[in-house]
Amino acid sequence: MDEARCRALLAAARVGRLATVRPDGRPHVVACCFAVEGDGVWTAVDAKPKATARLQRLANVRAHPRASLLVDHYEEDWDALWWVRVDGPAAVLEGGAERERALEALVAKYEQYAAAPPQGEVIALRVERWSGWAAR
Amino acid sequence: MDEARCRALLAAARVGRLATVRPDGRPHVVACCFAVEGDGVWTAVDAKPKATARLQRLANVRAHPRASLLVDHYEEDWDALWWVRVDGPAAVLEGGAERERALEALVAKYEQYAAAPPQGEVIALRVERWSGWAAR
Repeated sequence: MDEARCRALLAAARVGRLATVRPDGRPHVVACCFAVEGDGVWTAVDAKPKATARLQRLANVRAHPRASLLVDHYEEDWDALWWVRVDGPAAVLEGGAERERALEALVAKYEQYAAAPPQGEVIALRVERWSGWAAR
Repeated sequence: MDEARCRALLAAARVGRLATVRPDGRPHVVACCFAVEGDGVWTAVDAKPKATARLQRLANVRAHPRASLLVDHYEEDWDALWWVRVDGPAAVLEGGAERERALEALVAKYEQYAAAPPQGEVIALRVERWSGWAAR
């Protein structure tokens, strides 16, 4: 799958799965909403998951500043499967202009955020590598 | 979410996202089919992804024998969201009785495998920890 198609599928996807590495080296994965702008992917800590679970991904990125975000399509007709993955360095944004832009992009993409805009940290992933595959 | 509900949702899910850690310490995540039996979760290398991508997860588990598998439900009504995650030690099975049982369980769960049963290695995840969350 070429990069243009990867970009289109990623931008259109409504949910991704973000993999990070725990401070002790174990893998971790969460479902998340996200927004894309160029080679930047942003996801915010919002009110959806419980408080105790919310901060694990932040601790992970602070300890191991890399992330991998997957979007994929599953259906029972396996000829229709596809996935796109982006990999790269990641950072936790606690404030600043990029975090503001990220929050604006998230609110613009998800009308659900209008009622309860994310207030917390943003994880910023800078895409170093685009990967994708489609069954057809 | 209690463990019984986690177990029921995991067993019923048709696709999961498997996070592992690359030999160099970066996170990695793939979509996968899987089967569950008790505290064992199995996923097989099958014909779906491209050859070059297929072996990364195996190299990861060999280097860092831990895995995290997420199943989740997304829809635009965020009050309907849920996820279940299992974490634990993982191993690559190249042969033997457990691999045979895993392949049988996968073929029993996915009729798509009847036409092309997985032939390769199996990743076995032994669940140490069940986590789950539902918006309601």
